[in-house]
Amino acid sequence: MTREAILKLLQEVASGAASPDAALGRLAHLPYEDAGFAKIDHHRSLRLGLPEVIYAAGKTAAQVAAIFARMAETGSAVLATRATAEHAAAVREVCPVAEYHAEASIIGLPAASPAEKHGPLAVVCAGTSDMPVAEEAAVTAEYLGCAVDRIYDAGVAGLHRILAQQETLRSARAVIVCAGMEGALPSVVGGLAAAPVIAVPTSIGYGAAFGGLAALLGMLNSCSPNVCVVNIDNGFGAAYVAAMMLKAGQRQNSE
Amino acid sequence: MTREAILKLLQEVASGAASPDAALGRLAHLPYEDAGFAKIDHHRSLRLGLPEVIYAAGKTAAQVAAIFARMAETGSAVLATRATAEHAAAVREVCPVAEYHAEASIIGLPAASPAEKHGPLAVVCAGTSDMPVAEEAAVTAEYLGCAVDRIYDAGVAGLHRILAQQETLRSARAVIVCAGMEGALPSVVGGLAAAPVIAVPTSIGYGAAFGGLAALLGMLNSCSPNVCVVNIDNGFGAAYVAAMMLKAGQRQNSE
Amino acid sequence: MTREAILKLLQEVASGAASPDAALGRLAHLPYEDAGFAKIDHHRSLRLGLPEVIYAAGKTAAQVAAIFARMAETGSAVLATRATAEHAAAVREVCPVAEYHAEASIIGLPAASPAEKHGPLAVVCAGTSDMPVAEEAAVTAEYLGCAVDRIYDAGVAGLHRILAQQETLRSARAVIVCAGMEGALPSVVGGLAAAPVIAVPTSIGYGAAFGGLAALLGMLNSCSPNVCVVNIDNGFGAAYVAAMMLKAGQRQNSE
Amino acid sequence: MTREAILKLLQEVASGAASPDAALGRLAHLPYEDAGFAKIDHHRSLRLGLPEVIYAAGKTAAQVAAIFARMAETGSAVLATRATAEHAAAVREVCPVAEYHAEASIIGLPAASPAEKHGPLAVVCAGTSDMPVAEEAAVTAEYLGCAVDRIYDAGVAGLHRILAQQETLRSARAVIVCAGMEGALPSVVGGLAAAPVIAVPTSIGYGAAFGGLAALLGMLNSCSPNVCVVNIDNGFGAAYVAAMMLKAGQRQNSE
Amino acid sequence: MTREAILKLLQEVASGAASPDAALGRLAHLPYEDAGFAKIDHHRSLRLGLPEVIYAAGKTAAQVAAIFARMAETGSAVLATRATAEHAAAVREVCPVAEYHAEASIIGLPAASPAEKHGPLAVVCAGTSDMPVAEEAAVTAEYLGCAVDRIYDAGVAGLHRILAQQETLRSARAVIVCAGMEGALPSVVGGLAAAPVIAVPTSIGYGAAFGGLAALLGMLNSCSPNVCVVNIDNGFGAAYVAAMMLKAGQRQNSE
Amino acid sequence: MTREAILKLLQEVASGAASPDAALGRLAHLPYEDAGFAKIDHHRSLRLGLPEVIYAAGKTAAQVAAIFARMAETGSAVLATRATAEHAAAVREVCPVAEYHAEASIIGLPAASPAEKHGPLAVVCAGTSDMPVAEEAAVTAEYLGCAVDRIYDAGVAGLHRILAQQETLRSARAVIVCAGMEGALPSVVGGLAAAPVIAVPTSIGYGAAFGGLAALLGMLNSCSPNVCVVNIDNGFGAAYVAAMMLKAGQRQNSE
Amino acid sequence: MTREAILKLLQEVASGAASPDAALGRLAHLPYEDAGFAKIDHHRSLRLGLPEVIYAAGKTAAQVAAIFARMAETGSAVLATRATAEHAAAVREVCPVAEYHAEASIIGLPAASPAEKHGPLAVVCAGTSDMPVAEEAAVTAEYLGCAVDRIYDAGVAGLHRILAQQETLRSARAVIVCAGMEGALPSVVGGLAAAPVIAVPTSIGYGAAFGGLAALLGMLNSCSPNVCVVNIDNGFGAAYVAAMMLKAGQRQNSE
Amino acid sequence: MTREAILKLLQEVASGAASPDAALGRLAHLPYEDAGFAKIDHHRSLRLGLPEVIYAAGKTAAQVAAIFARMAETGSAVLATRATAEHAAAVREVCPVAEYHAEASIIGLPAASPAEKHGPLAVVCAGTSDMPVAEEAAVTAEYLGCAVDRIYDAGVAGLHRILAQQETLRSARAVIVCAGMEGALPSVVGGLAAAPVIAVPTSIGYGAAFGGLAALLGMLNSCSPNVCVVNIDNGFGAAYVAAMMLKAGQRQNSE
Repeated sequence: MTREAILKLLQEVASGAASPDAALGRLAHLPYEDAGFAKIDHHRSLRLGLPEVIYAAGKTAAQVAAIFARMAETGSAVLATRATAEHAAAVREVCPVAEYHAEASIIGLPAASPAEKHGPLAVVCAGTSDMPVAEEAAVTAEYLGCAVDRIYDAGVAGLHRILAQQETLRSARAVIVCAGMEGALPSVVGGLAAAPVIAVPTSIGYGAAFGGLAALLGMLNSCSPNVCVVNIDNGFGAAYVAAMMLKAGQRQNSE
Repeated sequence: MTREAILKLLQEVASGAASPDAALGRLAHLPYEDAGFAKIDHHRSLRLGLPEVIYAAGKTAAQVAAIFARMAETGSAVLATRATAEHAAAVREVCPVAEYHAEASIIGLPAASPAEKHGPLAVVCAGTSDMPVAEEAAVTAEYLGCAVDRIYDAGVAGLHRILAQQETLRSARAVIVCAGMEGALPSVVGGLAAAPVIAVPTSIGYGAAFGGLAALLGMLNSCSPNVCVVNIDNGFGAAYVAAMMLKAGQRQNSE
Repeated sequence: MTREAILKLLQEVASGAASPDAALGRLAHLPYEDAGFAKIDHHRSLRLGLPEVIYAAGKTAAQVAAIFARMAETGSAVLATRATAEHAAAVREVCPVAEYHAEASIIGLPAASPAEKHGPLAVVCAGTSDMPVAEEAAVTAEYLGCAVDRIYDAGVAGLHRILAQQETLRSARAVIVCAGMEGALPSVVGGLAAAPVIAVPTSIGYGAAFGGLAALLGMLNSCSPNVCVVNIDNGFGAAYVAAMMLKAGQRQNSE
Repeated sequence: MTREAILKLLQEVASGAASPDAALGRLAHLPYEDAGFAKIDHHRSLRLGLPEVIYAAGKTAAQVAAIFARMAETGSAVLATRATAEHAAAVREVCPVAEYHAEASIIGLPAASPAEKHGPLAVVCAGTSDMPVAEEAAVTAEYLGCAVDRIYDAGVAGLHRILAQQETLRSARAVIVCAGMEGALPSVVGGLAAAPVIAVPTSIGYGAAFGGLAALLGMLNSCSPNVCVVNIDNGFGAAYVAAMMLKAGQRQNSE
Repeated sequence: MTREAILKLLQEVASGAASPDAALGRLAHLPYEDAGFAKIDHHRSLRLGLPEVIYAAGKTAAQVAAIFARMAETGSAVLATRATAEHAAAVREVCPVAEYHAEASIIGLPAASPAEKHGPLAVVCAGTSDMPVAEEAAVTAEYLGCAVDRIYDAGVAGLHRILAQQETLRSARAVIVCAGMEGALPSVVGGLAAAPVIAVPTSIGYGAAFGGLAALLGMLNSCSPNVCVVNIDNGFGAAYVAAMMLKAGQRQNSE
Repeated sequence: MTREAILKLLQEVASGAASPDAALGRLAHLPYEDAGFAKIDHHRSLRLGLPEVIYAAGKTAAQVAAIFARMAETGSAVLATRATAEHAAAVREVCPVAEYHAEASIIGLPAASPAEKHGPLAVVCAGTSDMPVAEEAAVTAEYLGCAVDRIYDAGVAGLHRILAQQETLRSARAVIVCAGMEGALPSVVGGLAAAPVIAVPTSIGYGAAFGGLAALLGMLNSCSPNVCVVNIDNGFGAAYVAAMMLKAGQRQNSE
Repeated sequence: MTREAILKLLQEVASGAASPDAALGRLAHLPYEDAGFAKIDHHRSLRLGLPEVIYAAGKTAAQVAAIFARMAETGSAVLATRATAEHAAAVREVCPVAEYHAEASIIGLPAASPAEKHGPLAVVCAGTSDMPVAEEAAVTAEYLGCAVDRIYDAGVAGLHRILAQQETLRSARAVIVCAGMEGALPSVVGGLAAAPVIAVPTSIGYGAAFGGLAALLGMLNSCSPNVCVVNIDNGFGAAYVAAMMLKAGQRQNSE
Repeated sequence: MTREAILKLLQEVASGAASPDAALGRLAHLPYEDAGFAKIDHHRSLRLGLPEVIYAAGKTAAQVAAIFARMAETGSAVLATRATAEHAAAVREVCPVAEYHAEASIIGLPAASPAEKHGPLAVVCAGTSDMPVAEEAAVTAEYLGCAVDRIYDAGVAGLHRILAQQETLRSARAVIVCAGMEGALPSVVGGLAAAPVIAVPTSIGYGAAFGGLAALLGMLNSCSPNVCVVNIDNGFGAAYVAAMMLKAGQRQNSE
């Protein structure tokens, strides 16, 4: 409820068009559904074009489909992450235009009126095993309105692969780097890019990789100062942070 | 070695001004001594106005002073982080205009021709004990060209303190949040801000705080999707990432 | 063996009704089988109305049913926690009035003569995934004689949800808060409530959540001083502590 | 701002006693700057008589003395925890009636008009090395208005020591148990008491005690269901939770 | 090769019955194939009557049966630990007198000529869930020639259960205590027994039990000085150490 | 209170020499202050000749001296472990016959009437840096009445050193092995000895030794089944367990 | 692009056969696709005869077969590690001469023209459970051109087994040691061998083995200075390092 | 005792020059004092020219000097690692030709007749803070007879620094890489070198570096297969392994 809506309501009360009791009813949820909070959420999603997101893991296909359908009615973009093919089938029955990105495990519905693309955002991954996480990041970012450059299978043991992509890295306005095992790639990319690097440790590896802990610690201790980190396998979160960066940049200039 | 330099060399070969053998010699170290690498570094610091940085911890006062003086000659901004009053005294003998920010433990020399400020960047901290880390972030960000709004002592146990700052958070284009103990503040701020949040766990706490580990894990698992994390007590790194974000945004629009 | 029983025995010895040797035999196990210990257990369950509890995990349906039936004969309340639908079916064959609470995974039989309700106790959880743990706490507390107010899906990333429940929190005489991921909610609730907060870390999350460790450490380091913690996913234990608090309060005043 | 206050405001608008604009102004900061927050804090400290607390560790003697003096002016009780003799000397210069409890490392100033005592609260510790933590708990609890029974040096390797105190444990309305090393005492006490047990792991021990981690894990896994846990060495927090329990109990009955 | 055998060889050389070169050949592998090593193993199993042991986990039923049959031919006792019913069926086809102890997961064949029993050894466990580990210890110890007293379900939350067994504990010459969760029982038993206590942490528990780590750390930090520890769930090892203790005691006196 | 004393009391009641009420008074504290508990402690120390022990670390010289003197009056052996030269000087002022073992950091007073020696007990250590822990074990064991064979500086990297001591190991009735770093020695000794091995991890090492954790884990996972483990650097505890083993052996045979 | 190719290109420019612009085009990717990098890879695999390697875990049988077939066309040796029988069947359909080593889980195709063998390399393992890792190492090493001596089931609890192999160890030019549980074997072997020891911790064990962590820490802290370590279960990596050592030695001498 | 010595002894027995009994006496300790073991040690140090090494940390200056002097008499090289200037002063009083390498903290005495140099060995470090560890490795390697190329301050955030050294890396026959923080450098170097890489994690870093744990885990999970790892800060061990590699290579070819 916006400031304007409240003022309008108060004016109705003043004019007798609304009784105090009826007004109270409409204000009832005010402290929590109040414009202050809703405004942020709303404002954010309206202006930044951020979609509604469903975390599908642990939900039944029917549950995901039901939530997806309800969200789709608002016209905003909708994402379901960690979604299986079974989830996708159920969603597409109720929402046939939704698309399933199998490698990213994402079901997506683009916004009705897509915004201009921001970027470019580079999404880099170290090995082919890291690709599902990288795709979660890349596909999410695309639904969040980013133009994405993918640089895959560019691990540090064969430096020529990442060096061959210097131009792309140099022109990126934000970079997401997904790597498991020793998690060294963000430090290398951090030195090549002129933009913030969001590092995503992946759970790829075995033994002393400890489910992504080795990569996580490596990234937190990066000697490149332009590296920040999100949770293990959290491609979605990295994309969300990156999209906010790019949009916050845009906002500044349009104000 | 730039593209132009290589073309010029090839033209000399074509014209006979250089023999193929001599040209080969000049190309020999090309893959690694190539300007391509230097260019990045140079380009970045020139265009983005990022200062030279000295990590003073573990260095003698004389060492810090000597390095500081050499860097100051280039006219760029210079920062020495984790610097003691003793370090500062030594630096100011050789570079009297340098300033010492005691709470931030930073010795700084502004760039000769300061760039326009970017931002606003909000720097938030949970308790007064977190202030040294928050100040390291805030002072660094200011030297990196950011306009900083400080919101200190706003821990989640007294929500009214952070809620009272909603307007500042809403208008920030990037937010840094420093917190020790349970590290809950970034999640709360993440829900109030419309910008990326860079979380800095601090080593404040005792017992099961394990030197910042509890806060670090908490921040990595934040339920707010716009939160990314840097190393424990790494206020400098958070400011560096934030400044890059803001400048990357600017760059995009000026291109 | 009570003080009175011992005195009676000694009087029998004095009167010759019992020989010293026979008396010794009856006193023989005194230090360990003494009523003193049984009395506590008995006294406690009688006065406080605490039910008998079966931890069903790892037991067969037949085993749980047999134990449940035997306990039910005593007329006290009976609880089986971590119980599956299969466990429930077996129990209800031998004890048809037992109820199965599927989300809480609890089979319960109310006490024959239910005591007056204590409370109110607020049970709060951060996300829908935390609901099974919250329900284990809430249902347990109800069988233990508490009046429970549920506040679900009130994570800190959307503060308006928990702020909307301030009145309920303020009037609660004890609060249980279940949260996974970063476990920040107890600190926030701790600042809003005027009662002790029992925090239950849940194993919800992935990657650096480390099966609930992140939430556990966060809660142990809460900046709200009125927070104490139980084991990961231990909704039962939290309810037990809360019920004892409320009953100990009652006891005091009735004495 | 209560529901009644809003209704009253709306009625004023309806009657013309307040203009819509003026009403908007009074509603403007409602969700976050609302008295609701201040009220809680105020209400809590007024009704429960909880003192102001200073965490002295890391503060200079002058700082502690200044804060202490300012708080003392309000007439409420004041506590400074983790305070050294040097802190105490400085405080007593500005506030001569303050008392220093050396073993508890607490400087305290009782409330001007002390409330009735609540309890009894039993404070138990396993070994003499745990006494500083136990004293922090006991002295804090006394300033918070509790009647405290101390049971010290009652480790489980000599059960007769704790068994000799059964009567005291049985009559306690809350119990705090401080133990280092293996942290087994809370489980044993949990079985003997008819009240909630707040366990405080201490950092006493060496080697695989890992600074209190062994005791902490032991207490979190207690087989006694009436045990909850606070941070390592956090005697203050245990006392705070216990005092809130006892006062919440009282509150209920006086309502 | 025994001292006697070497002397005999030297005498053959002295008498010319063996040439120095031939003798060298027979001595050649002496440092490593020497009877010294075999003697220990042999001597130990002969005198102490220790059985051959097969760790069945991870082996096929056929493999276990084959190894078991080969060992059984020697007439010594044979044990297969961590054995399933399927393993047992296969073994009993080739060795019908072997017995399967389902709760202990042990297949056993007593020695042809059983030795005199040593002991008594008390085997204690905290909860019914710890019984498989306790049974592994108890059954192993019996095959190793110990007289075993079982004290089960004697957790510290109900002290009367363990106190009722004081006499048995006092007369035991060695005690094995199996406990999961907080692992407090060995400390309590250590104070009641006049013999060494071998503590076995079990993996029983959840959450912060971390698969037995909590119990392991607790036991390593026991405040009872007569407690030593073996690996998590290692009932076999505890029994082996206990049997060696009892037999070493016997040996001394028979020498 | 012994069985005999209770019988005598009952006979006095029967004869009228004591009234039931008076008898009740004398029995009053029976369940917890009963001789049953004291008897164990007493019985144990009388029969097994175990000394009183003071943990000197963290106590002042004056405190240690005072406790030591009081214990010395009973005529039993007295030990102060982790004692400095300063502690020793203070003790020897009040108890001149006490001896200080500097390498073991132990102040000891032999029992007035020393018992027969038990053993032999072998104390082995891996490197010279482990000697303080080994000496704590060896000296403690000697005061506890054991005959000790020391085998020092016998690390596994030079196997000939430990192999040269096979005869001593083979004849030992119990073995204590102290080792830091990788903690491999107990496994090797376990294969050479025909007796239980009590392994003591030491905190010797650096980096991934993690203060003795590497050695501790190694020893807990020993492939020799006759190995049990005590806490890091706990030479005292190892000696205590070993002495109890040897005395329990003796007891059996003398009964 | 080789040095020769560049020279040839420059000569074409000199002769006018290529224009400077066209030459620039061909040189364009030089800094990163330059022969410098390819040369290393190529040179290395050509001279050292290292095979192409496929990590089969997580790939479908069809994927592995397709990659294998493509690599086999180059004539170099090909390895697929962590391969199942199903992978093997698929590979042998497209490449019938490939061999499947079931215990090592390796599918291998020898180089068309096998190089001279290097070595000898000793591969040692502690228990039969460690054999799959040891076989991964041994088979890999053989495909990499090493002559391998296997020493299996030589754990330190029965020293005679490893001592019997001293001659083999003494003559080895590199040694790989695979061990789980306490991981003590590399230290013992390190003392017996006159060559570098590459230690491979295995995940064999339970409880406090923590999936190989105990063995890993043990090996990192080895008291034998000639021990280095690879990841848990990484038999392949150990073989790769060993083969490089042996080939680097050869290279030196042939230069 | 060598094979030859045994044969000679047997010949004396055959000739009657020694009686069988006397010969037995001389053979008595054979299994453990046998030349087999000594031979290895001797053979190794003689042939490979490895020096005697003293770990000075924790030893007094007098102790180090005494041991150093005794070792120096044998004419072999002598090293004292982790030595302070004070240690060095004491050593040089008794052995004036010893040299102190301050940055490496090593006191060294070259062998009387230095062997031919092996190598080249490249020693690389990431930052200037890693130099003490790198120097420990480099200086040790030089005393062990290696020709060392130092490549310092070549962290991955500025790739041009390490790329500029490709030629040196390519020609090295073994490489040692020291790095703290995220420990990424060994993976990068592993891809550039054609030789085994021995990675040394350093304790440089703060926060989530956890004293070198992050670097250690990173290196263990390196995606370059030619990387093996030693303990944190163990420059000495890395040099020892490297020297053994180079010498084992030489040995092969000279045989």
